[in-house]
Amino acid sequence: MKSRAAVAFAAGKPLELVEIDVEGPRTGEVLVRIVATSVCHTDAYTLSGSDPEGVFPAVLGHEGAGIVEAVGEGVTSLKVGDHVIPLYTAECGKCKFCLSGKTNLCGSVRATQGKGLMPDGTTRFSFEGKPLFHYMGTSTFSEYTVLPEVSLAKVSSDAPLDKICLLGCGVTTGIGAVINTAKVTPGSTVAVFGLGAIGLAVIQGAQMMNASRIIAIDINPDKFELARQFGATDFVNPKDYSAPIQQVIVDMTDGGVDYSFECIGNVNVMRSALECCHKGWGESIIIGVAGAGQEISTRPFQLVTGRVWKGSAFGGVKGRSQLPGYVERYMRGEIKIDEFITHDMPFEQINHAFDLLHEGKSIRTVLHY
Amino acid sequence: MKSRAAVAFAAGKPLELVEIDVEGPRTGEVLVRIVATSVCHTDAYTLSGSDPEGVFPAVLGHEGAGIVEAVGEGVTSLKVGDHVIPLYTAECGKCKFCLSGKTNLCGSVRATQGKGLMPDGTTRFSFEGKPLFHYMGTSTFSEYTVLPEVSLAKVSSDAPLDKICLLGCGVTTGIGAVINTAKVTPGSTVAVFGLGAIGLAVIQGAQMMNASRIIAIDINPDKFELARQFGATDFVNPKDYSAPIQQVIVDMTDGGVDYSFECIGNVNVMRSALECCHKGWGESIIIGVAGAGQEISTRPFQLVTGRVWKGSAFGGVKGRSQLPGYVERYMRGEIKIDEFITHDMPFEQINHAFDLLHEGKSIRTVLHY
Repeated sequence: MKSRAAVAFAAGKPLELVEIDVEGPRTGEVLVRIVATSVCHTDAYTLSGSDPEGVFPAVLGHEGAGIVEAVGEGVTSLKVGDHVIPLYTAECGKCKFCLSGKTNLCGSVRATQGKGLMPDGTTRFSFEGKPLFHYMGTSTFSEYTVLPEVSLAKVSSDAPLDKICLLGCGVTTGIGAVINTAKVTPGSTVAVFGLGAIGLAVIQGAQMMNASRIIAIDINPDKFELARQFGATDFVNPKDYSAPIQQVIVDMTDGGVDYSFECIGNVNVMRSALECCHKGWGESIIIGVAGAGQEISTRPFQLVTGRVWKGSAFGGVKGRSQLPGYVERYMRGEIKIDEFITHDMPFEQINHAFDLLHEGKSIRTVLHY
Repeated sequence: MKSRAAVAFAAGKPLELVEIDVEGPRTGEVLVRIVATSVCHTDAYTLSGSDPEGVFPAVLGHEGAGIVEAVGEGVTSLKVGDHVIPLYTAECGKCKFCLSGKTNLCGSVRATQGKGLMPDGTTRFSFEGKPLFHYMGTSTFSEYTVLPEVSLAKVSSDAPLDKICLLGCGVTTGIGAVINTAKVTPGSTVAVFGLGAIGLAVIQGAQMMNASRIIAIDINPDKFELARQFGATDFVNPKDYSAPIQQVIVDMTDGGVDYSFECIGNVNVMRSALECCHKGWGESIIIGVAGAGQEISTRPFQLVTGRVWKGSAFGGVKGRSQLPGYVERYMRGEIKIDEFITHDMPFEQINHAFDLLHEGKSIRTVLHY
């Protein structure tokens, strides 16, 4: 079948709006019509060419929501008409990871997903007869996309797809990192580095967990007002200080915070985030994705004196079993999503959405097919 | 009063056996007659001159046991004749750290202890009229030493002091890191890097916690037999492999270990220890003390994919409240200590004990006053 799509033909170039060919779902696969998708920094990172795993030409996009159009042989958990959120972190329920009870990572489709292929090693996309790669197992920048059954969360059909698409990455990642990875306790102090969608979602999560103090940190003070609306109590622009930012935070919290979150992908900020934690118990969670080959470092004394360094992928959330609950909480008004959406536009303006992201002018732009 | 002591007059030189002057205990202080002390790598590190906090001339030594000889004004928890283990990690029970319930670190005497002084900013030791610095708040290389009351654990007087002195550092640190810091669960896989006293104690702790597989790693295969006696199940000499040791461990454990422990103080090994952990849940605990200014590093992806990097000081054990229990467990045969003692000798042979440590020929030498 034919599908509107924004294709990344080469690194460093704008996406091209073309009509591609999409093959139907094979065994264990599902064809989804994407209704809405957003643009995340990870898409931009891969498009820039900095992602060592990036392959081209490819159909990017991983934060979307849609409706099942067809199911392949053997698919039992989904049927035509189901509302779904694509998952870049699958959940098969059968692998060593899923069965461990300790992680939301899943090994079932990881190897092929990382290569831009479906689990059988082929691709369902093509343009002018030449194959296009998939991306993060989701490829939401095509109106019609094919995913493994294990990479789709079935959610309530009452929820607006052009809102809950944000649960496909940013909002869930931030809230989940607070609840699942850090397990922030009531009364805690929290520092959040970077006030994009992830950082704002972390602030929201910290407020949900009744943190007593939520310090929002960004070099762009335009972000502070929105951070305040999500629950931040303190606002710090590192440019306002000559001292290292970790020292500033330690001083303003009588020794450091209980939890910190790096939501940028900057390895120097990751160090600051760790070192602004309180001696004896402070935990720092890395959420941001760093550039290829970059490394974090610190003096081991930081850890020996009780700080803990962790990371989080998709907020530790198991997509198929837990994401439907996030949708329910949004419907009950317990999770804010609408507030992240600074722009809505037709899918055809996707390159403009990337521009807004790069310029720091948007938190999330929702693209409507 | 006069006291036999081994004094570090300068960095990089052997200790000198001299008779020093020891002043009586002031308010909140206790005079202890050390009966037995051991030599630990941290003493050797400071003596070498590599420790940026090292001050000279000083009375080193931090792994000892003795008997209270006199108490200063206001001391209520100890009396003359009590058997005690000196603590380089004090426990005041009143500071932010002690009250947190989250750490064994204590802030009460930290600032002065780090400078080689008693809490009032002075020293109780002198030689030929010139002051000598204290060390780690303990200075067990003097037969008579003065400590803050909060830096002494009162233990059973039935326990042999020339054995339980090892609970003052190495044995407790290793076992505690397993039980308190990592909280190793039954059936887990564990990798232990470095088979000195700390590493062997970690192995013992892992066996106590019913780990299913305990991998002992050292470049000196002479250590393997003792590791086996403590409970290690697998033995790896990195020199036998061309691949990085983390890859070797990952391969032999189907993806990595559940817990790893660095018991050397080598920042490159710390990285290996982290990276040999299983994706999704593996935790690595740094116990070794690295050289001044050295840093650990890794790709943040290691943490984002679920590994956790921690550290441990004195095994997370609160000295005054928990160390007496360790002594009881030794008396009941639940904790091995005797097996760490490869050499016993008179205190006067202390420089020989250092030589054995440097040559890798001893695990622990107990010096008897």
